[in-house]
Amino acid sequence: QVTGPSGEGTDAVVILEKTPFQEEKVLDLLKKHTKLELQMRNDIYSTYHLYPPLELSEIKTTVVYPATEKHLQKYLRQEVHLIRETWEDYKNITLPFIQSQSFSIQWVYNILEKKAEADRIIHENPDPCNGFVLVPDFKWNQNQLDDLYLIALVHCREVKSLRDLTAEHLPLLRNILQEGKEAIAKRFGVPASQLRIYLHYQPSYYHLHVHFTALGYDAPGSSVERAHLLADVIDNLALDSMYYQKRALTFALRADELLFKKFQEAGRV
Amino acid sequence: QVTGPSGEGTDAVVILEKTPFQEEKVLDLLKKHTKLELQMRNDIYSTYHLYPPLELSEIKTTVVYPATEKHLQKYLRQEVHLIRETWEDYKNITLPFIQSQSFSIQWVYNILEKKAEADRIIHENPDPCNGFVLVPDFKWNQNQLDDLYLIALVHCREVKSLRDLTAEHLPLLRNILQEGKEAIAKRFGVPASQLRIYLHYQPSYYHLHVHFTALGYDAPGSSVERAHLLADVIDNLALDSMYYQKRALTFALRADELLFKKFQEAGRV
Repeated sequence: QVTGPSGEGTDAVVILEKTPFQEEKVLDLLKKHTKLELQMRNDIYSTYHLYPPLELSEIKTTVVYPATEKHLQKYLRQEVHLIRETWEDYKNITLPFIQSQSFSIQWVYNILEKKAEADRIIHENPDPCNGFVLVPDFKWNQNQLDDLYLIALVHCREVKSLRDLTAEHLPLLRNILQEGKEAIAKRFGVPASQLRIYLHYQPSYYHLHVHFTALGYDAPGSSVERAHLLADVIDNLALDSMYYQKRALTFALRADELLFKKFQEAGRV
Repeated sequence: QVTGPSGEGTDAVVILEKTPFQEEKVLDLLKKHTKLELQMRNDIYSTYHLYPPLELSEIKTTVVYPATEKHLQKYLRQEVHLIRETWEDYKNITLPFIQSQSFSIQWVYNILEKKAEADRIIHENPDPCNGFVLVPDFKWNQNQLDDLYLIALVHCREVKSLRDLTAEHLPLLRNILQEGKEAIAKRFGVPASQLRIYLHYQPSYYHLHVHFTALGYDAPGSSVERAHLLADVIDNLALDSMYYQKRALTFALRADELLFKKFQEAGRV
């Protein structure tokens, strides 16, 4: 809080960021008047504290001043917790929560019905049951392949998430895996072996969709507590049609999310 | 390349990492003899270059010296491909490869035998069969909890990786999950719900170990193509003792890795 000219407190947001190393300056970092402190040594490994010269220790600083309440909320850290959801939890807590929410997925239907983004469709299998539409994700500007990100949206509207999948969906899932890979190789030249193909649980919207991201891209939501590889999902369903109606699933929730409060009320966190 | 006493060039790997800010030092960063250079201003937004005092500009430095060809390869940037390894692939390609390699894990034995890092041990269960040692990972400097990273190293020396696990290892795995959580809550005050607890496949060394990282930390190797949640591993083994001797597993390999070449030779990529 900064004291303004009127004497009143006025909030400011100060953002500090350590920026990536610049390749051409790394030699300077190692050669110039750099202070080095040994921290620990074991076999051929050792660690040090290195204190670079002033000109190489820049911190990117952004100031928002005066900052509104909205600015403050945007930058306040929220605590995140893991939930291990059993099938009972899903039935008793998560499913009623999903049903009570009126998450609008009109934008998904608009794409499926060609009312929006029709020109962006990369591939379509029009089968109402086992078909899907493949489109670039909003987060990808399509300028470079490094952060390639596409989404397959299924035509059927009854499957909310991983939790609804059974062996009956295997043809659909195999179509997505196979045709998605082929369409991306054909259009973008990215081979299947360089694609991370996965579902989210929890998803951000409850209409089944599959993520295709460049393997070299550290895509948000690709970590183990949220992503499920489509190939694993297919194998699990082939092994046991009811796999996702039996198994506990882990996911992270922010402490201010309503679903988190539902798990708290149920004494499950 | 460093010139050794014999005059020959000897390679070293030097890893430089900017570490997260320590919350309690942020005020110092803003108050102390900190040089500030205005870069741009627009409305309520402005950006600066901030040059912190020396003691707040630490760069974590890890040195591997002398470094083998393998160490060098590990850190060079390379094309990465996904492999979907069946159990047959494991037996015919991966296992013979692991056995043919003599990757030294002396540093692991040093820790288990208290010949190194004994003062760093956070928790130990000394049981030779179901016990383990919990230590901070090299990557964590222990100055802040944001990038908390610990490793549980098992005492038994026969388990190379996830592929060797059966229901017989459930007591060991449950000990690691339970005692690891408790030890971290006790020592660092981080609750279990804020820990990502997982195994890597492929691991970087073939002595079973489990990673504990802060949930809010986007730890390297926590993405779905490499990490396996310990809770999932336990459930899978409880469901089917031979789960990891049946299931295909996906992992990424760099194009220059020997194991990748083995898969290529076998016509599996």
